[in-house]
Formats: sequence, structure tokens, C-alpha cells
Amino acid sequence: MNPIASALSIGIDIGGTKVAGGTVDREGRVLDRAGADTPERSKSPKVVEDTIVGVVEELLARAEQSVATVGIGAAGFVAADRATIVFSPHLSWRNEPLRDALAKRIHLPIFIDNDANAAVWAEGKFGAARGEEHVMMVNLGTGIGGGILMGGKVIRGRFGIAGEFGHMQVVPDGQRCECGNRGCWEQYASGNALVREARSLMTANSPVVRDLAERVGGDPQKLTGPLITDAAREGDPIAVELLADIGHWLGVGIADLAAAFDPGIFVIGGGVSAAGDLLLGPARTTFRRHLTGRGYRPEAVIVVASLGNEAGLIGAADLARLTASGQDV
Amino acid sequence: MNPIASALSIGIDIGGTKVAGGTVDREGRVLDRAGADTPERSKSPKVVEDTIVGVVEELLARAEQSVATVGIGAAGFVAADRATIVFSPHLSWRNEPLRDALAKRIHLPIFIDNDANAAVWAEGKFGAARGEEHVMMVNLGTGIGGGILMGGKVIRGRFGIAGEFGHMQVVPDGQRCECGNRGCWEQYASGNALVREARSLMTANSPVVRDLAERVGGDPQKLTGPLITDAAREGDPIAVELLADIGHWLGVGIADLAAAFDPGIFVIGGGVSAAGDLLLGPARTTFRRHLTGRGYRPEAVIVVASLGNEAGLIGAADLARLTASGQDV
Repeated sequence: MNPIASALSIGIDIGGTKVAGGTVDREGRVLDRAGADTPERSKSPKVVEDTIVGVVEELLARAEQSVATVGIGAAGFVAADRATIVFSPHLSWRNEPLRDALAKRIHLPIFIDNDANAAVWAEGKFGAARGEEHVMMVNLGTGIGGGILMGGKVIRGRFGIAGEFGHMQVVPDGQRCECGNRGCWEQYASGNALVREARSLMTANSPVVRDLAERVGGDPQKLTGPLITDAAREGDPIAVELLADIGHWLGVGIADLAAAFDPGIFVIGGGVSAAGDLLLGPARTTFRRHLTGRGYRPEAVIVVASLGNEAGLIGAADLARLTASGQDV
Repeated sequence: MNPIASALSIGIDIGGTKVAGGTVDREGRVLDRAGADTPERSKSPKVVEDTIVGVVEELLARAEQSVATVGIGAAGFVAADRATIVFSPHLSWRNEPLRDALAKRIHLPIFIDNDANAAVWAEGKFGAARGEEHVMMVNLGTGIGGGILMGGKVIRGRFGIAGEFGHMQVVPDGQRCECGNRGCWEQYASGNALVREARSLMTANSPVVRDLAERVGGDPQKLTGPLITDAAREGDPIAVELLADIGHWLGVGIADLAAAFDPGIFVIGGGVSAAGDLLLGPARTTFRRHLTGRGYRPEAVIVVASLGNEAGLIGAADLARLTASGQDV
């Protein structure tokens, strides 16, 4: 076997709050972990670079077998050259030549991809979509991240930035989105949407929200997605409804994606997916009701991701290993 | 060269009203043509089959060089096996084993694909998107047909039926669609949408519609897409507005598709595309206004198709030739 293909690979996932690193073997197992806080948006690219290099060096120092490659999954637009971060919402990167900057300090082949591309690769090869060649991943966090596998390959588009499903418009003149548009899908099906709706109910002094209000001492700003999910699990009917609304919009968007891409499976990841069937039950119902051609076609299944928040680093590590081995992935 | 690759190929495009056939060389030139009316939906699959065989035999009888393959592009859901038509809105086909049925009567390799897949292949190889590997085609006819090339390959999805963009929901609880849903894109950006809106204005006795009303002797049922396009070209302001509304919705949907797939070029085909910049001007304006990440990313271009209504048969013929030559397209 190619020595790179059998060596370990380090994966780094740069999210909005954490830089998570792991040393990953070729079966997708994470053998060691390290991490740091994501530098604030006001910090220079150099600070972000230092943070990444610090995590990589920590993992390299502890590695018990040879590490041959480093893969980075980053939330942002990664250019088609796989070397430049065009734009990142959480960081100061604007046309940042990340690969070259890191290559001066890390003397291993470096691979860069969008974090959701890395995650869908991991779920398709090692996780919930194992065995499927046509996979769409929908990551419900503060927003929506998306990744696509078609015919077993990552679909990145002409400019490298496919998969921004969260910014498909689902409601004309709808809620404002950070991206500058209105009515984006992620304003209706995401952790932010869940919290916004709950706060809005509480601010309106609605009596139905009493259970949630008690949990946060009446302060809407203390409401969080996990808190609402916990309340729903414990049977609070309004929390169940709030998650069902998110699930409904998830189903609408998934039906749109199924019309356009026709995958075999949708993998739902991200923090909100922890709500499980409280979210996916309503999503499946709406999906079946909205899918075009329903009754005359096979239908995709909708499942929860299985690799949790390590999908990005596992996928980045694996894509780095395969790319350095000469595979086109 | 492989003898199949250099021989002629017959392409057949089965649309809602016409079965169009052509004998196509490997440069995509149509050397001979034949056609027939599409049998009505009430007719049996056998009648459709007879019609296809008739057109193929007519072309074979006249061919001056060797014909090695036959490609069929059909409006409908073609299964992933490329042999079965799962469903067709215009025909009686329901899980119709078309390839096997035709193979008994046409003794050449037969290739079957969705008509829009064939069209996007032709536009990508011989037409308006020549040289581009990431192409999305949006065919505006009575509805919207869609085809996708990514990395130079046709994206067909897990079950063979990707590209049904026309049934993405763009307006919650919007206009009813033939597919059984509401608010589908093709209810806002298609020939049917254009005619519906014009008729609605005329039925409302709006004075602004006087020019159009005169053209049809006051009978809304006589309004057609080409008639409205002609009126717009001649400067009728309401016809210009009606086309601009269609163009606006075209731009909204294209921005959604760009967010998800990130192609380098959108090719707009179908009858409504004859309106040219009366349609594409507003579409481009809305696209630029709605594209997520605008200003931080390269943007796809939007162009009119160049192969007209022969794209489907040219693409079907070429895909048949390449498939029979052992290429994976």
C-alpha cells in the first residue's frame, strides 16, 4: 500500500467557536484529540494560523505512528484551487492564501476544504451514509451548512463553493439573513431560528411559553437551542411545537433539494440534530408531502448524522490522505 | 478511432407535442431530420413506441453513412438503470421498460435519458456552454426542465431523476402546480406563468392590457407566450413588464441554484428564452441582488441556449454514441 494511504492523518475543523483537531487512522477512527478556541473575527489571519499550527504541533508531538498529511475543514468559501479561503463569516479571512501560509510552517502535504464538504465525506465513508454514493448533508447549527456527494465524489462547483443550501430563498421578503438577503432557508430551519422564535414568544409574554420562561428566570436572552430541546424531551408542548416548526421547514428545503439533486439519503447533522425524532419526524412528514412526483418515484431517506461534531475533522483528515495518495476526491 | 465513435448517431427528442428525430455526426451537426406528433396521453405505450420506431426507420433508410447508435431524450423520470421510464407527464408511460421494448425492433445500441439531461450535454459540448465543465440548464417551456453538468458529467442523482428544479418551492402556499404541490418555481418562471398572468390581467379588464387585448380580439384564451413576446419586442409596456416578472422569478431561482450547486454558467433554453434580454436582463438583475455572498465570490454567467429545440436530440445522439463507445457520461 501507498505509505501515505496507510499513515495517520491529522484533521482540523475550524468552526465558529472551536478549532478541533484529531489524529485519524484510515478507518476514520480518531486516535488523539486537541483543540483551541477560535480566534475572534477581529484577530488577524496570523493569529488564526498560529492557532492551527499550535493544534497540529500538539498532535504531531504525541503521535505514536507516522503522520503523513494534514487536512483542514473550514467554515467559509474555499476557492476551487483548494488553497485560498475566499471568505469566512466567523474569521478575518478575505482571499487568504491559507495553504501556502501553513505550508511554510507545517512540513506535510496540506489539504483544505469547506467544513461541510469534509463532513459529508466522513458520513458517506464512515458514518450514517456509509455505502451510499449520492448523499446530501444538512448541518443545522447557528445556520445551515451543506455538503454534497454525487457518484461518490464531493461536488464543489465551478468556483469551489457549492453546498450553501442555507441561503436558498424559501420565503419571499422573509426574515433578514446575515448574508444580506431575506427569506434564506437557514432563517427558518436552524438553531438560530429555533431560539429566535422562542425568544419572540417569550418577549410577547405569551402564556404558552411559561415552562421555558421558568427555565431561564424570565430572561429571553438565556434561551438556547439545547435548553429548548431538553424542554421538548421532557414534554413541554410549546418546545415540541417550536422544534416541529423547524422540522417542517427542514422538510420543505429537503424536498427542494431532492427535486434538484435526487440523492439517496439526507444526513442531518449539527447541534439541532440532537433533537432526533422531535425534529426529524415533522421533517419527514413535510418532505413526503412536498416531494414532487411523490408516489411515482423512489424517495430518499432522512437520517441523523452518526459522527457528531467530529465528522469535519475526520473527513478533512481522510480527504487529505486520499488527495496526497493521488486520488481525485 | 472506435468505429462507433466515428459513426453517425440518431437522436430522438420526445416532447409534449412533437417527437423530433435527427441524424447527428460526432461534431453535433444534424445531417437529416424527421418527426411526428407526440401521441396523446390516452394512447398506449405501444403507440408511442411505434411512433419512435417510425422516425428512427425513416432516418435509417435515408442515412448516407453508417449509423451505429440511437439515443432517446424523453420528458419524464428516467430510472437510474437508463432503461425504464418511471413516469412521464405527457405520455401513458408508468414504469415503462422502453429500452427493452425498442431493442426488439431497433437493432442498434439504444440509450435513454431525460430530455433536459440530453440538452445540457449538447449545450455543454457543442453549444452555449462549450468549454465549461459546471453547467446548469434551465429550460423554460410550459414548465421548467433542468439539466446539470458537474465536472463535465451529467448529474442524474441516486434514482436517475435529478434536475427537477421547476418543482422547488419558491412561494409558500403559492400557485397550484400540476405536480400536486403549491408554489413551485415553474408556476412563476415559465411560459405557462407568463400566459396565466397576462390572461388574469385581461380577465380583470385592466386598461393596461389594451394592446394585448387588441391582438387577440379580446379573447384571453388566445394569448400565447410568443404573442406576448412579440408585443414586448414592439414596445408594449405591459408585455415588457410581464416578461420582466418572469425574468425576476427566473433570477430568484437561479440564485438558489447557484447557492446550492455553484455552476460557472446557466444556459436558459426553451420557448420563453426567445425573449432574450427582455427576460434575461431582469433575471440577471435579480440574480445579482439575490446571490448569497455576492461581492465575495465569482459569479456565474447567464446566457441563452444556442442549439434551440434541437439540443435534446443532439445530446441524446451524442450520449448514445459515447456510452456505446464505453465512455461514462
